[in-house]
Amino acid sequence: MQGSRKRLEVPVDIVFLFYDGMTALDAIGPWEVLSRVPGANVQAASPHGGAVTTDTGLAFGGCVPIADIARADVLLVPGGSDVRPLLEDPRLLDWVRGIDATTTWTASVCTGALVLGAAGLLKARRATTHWAVLESLRKYGATPLTRRFVEDGKLLTASGVSAGIDMALALAAKLADPLTAQGLQLAIEYDPDPPFDAGAPAKATVEILVRARALLAEPAKKGRGYRTPA
Amino acid sequence: MQGSRKRLEVPVDIVFLFYDGMTALDAIGPWEVLSRVPGANVQAASPHGGAVTTDTGLAFGGCVPIADIARADVLLVPGGSDVRPLLEDPRLLDWVRGIDATTTWTASVCTGALVLGAAGLLKARRATTHWAVLESLRKYGATPLTRRFVEDGKLLTASGVSAGIDMALALAAKLADPLTAQGLQLAIEYDPDPPFDAGAPAKATVEILVRARALLAEPAKKGRGYRTPA
Repeated sequence: MQGSRKRLEVPVDIVFLFYDGMTALDAIGPWEVLSRVPGANVQAASPHGGAVTTDTGLAFGGCVPIADIARADVLLVPGGSDVRPLLEDPRLLDWVRGIDATTTWTASVCTGALVLGAAGLLKARRATTHWAVLESLRKYGATPLTRRFVEDGKLLTASGVSAGIDMALALAAKLADPLTAQGLQLAIEYDPDPPFDAGAPAKATVEILVRARALLAEPAKKGRGYRTPA
Repeated sequence: MQGSRKRLEVPVDIVFLFYDGMTALDAIGPWEVLSRVPGANVQAASPHGGAVTTDTGLAFGGCVPIADIARADVLLVPGGSDVRPLLEDPRLLDWVRGIDATTTWTASVCTGALVLGAAGLLKARRATTHWAVLESLRKYGATPLTRRFVEDGKLLTASGVSAGIDMALALAAKLADPLTAQGLQLAIEYDPDPPFDAGAPAKATVEILVRARALLAEPAKKGRGYRTPA
């Protein structure tokens, strides 16, 4: 047992990109799973280090500046209500490309896929993202799929916000083993039982879809902007 | 439409208790849902204000000191790997009791229920918490139930970590209406599809249960302690 346990604990450097306007749950779902993988060394990195504010007003502190991180075994880019500033930041996109060149797995949640796309990492790939922006993956040369998450080579892309939890459990099974992934699922008691069944466009009425779009637009009114990339 | 929309936007003050050693997802699942309820004013409050560090090493900044908060429509207490310091903090428990006296809903996720229990708020209540500590609810006079979340009067308690998302959607339906709750579910694309089905003890093998307990104990080795309350 001790021997097999030791073998699992190969150090794994997992870097999360944090930024102003990110969606907290996109990152924290996977963080809660991946940070508990034996041997995992998780770090939050942000464009300038220090603190970032999410699109719902939460503040994360203690981020490492991206300039201080040169490699990772896993890179995870969460989405946010407005990722346009990232898509237009050549320095950030260079960093994403550079880290991707060192990773075993490069992952995104929600609109984080658009950042990977802008960095040129979705060319000729199958990928997914939040349903509201799914078709915009095409302009990065990707084939958009309506799936909870998509694996294509070393690229893992999850659909909207909460989908990062499902993707992270699958990734935990790769980084460690399926038993550990199931242990993690039980540790975070991830036995979902939503009170409604409207979590995907195919399951929602038009009325729910209209309400969801209005709610997604809400942070913009508070100056934290949800703007669907064109 | 505009008229009916306005009626939904009654201001709702929602206070989350943040503290050192909290489990990030316990709070962020509900935060992602509740902060998007029209009219919601969400605040993170901590015992001394400022920053707190989670049991997986994340830093949250910008917390309001609990002394500065005298009331709330909703109080939510997330769990953490080691809540014992909170259970032995009379000033904190006084504050929890005082806020509860002003709320429409008092809620917990995971071991946050133990904090409500220590504050005397679980007496003769049906409640739930993380499976690993479920029986410990009895010492606070509660009847423990194996449910995703339990509603008893104005008390809402969710089971482990990820269960706060399900509870928060049910609470959003109460604070706003079911259509808004379903819109929120779609906005965060909460259509869970875990790659494994081991999220509850009843669904897990003994081997998975043993692994889960070992993984829950892991933060302790990093000095962030998971210690099951006796």
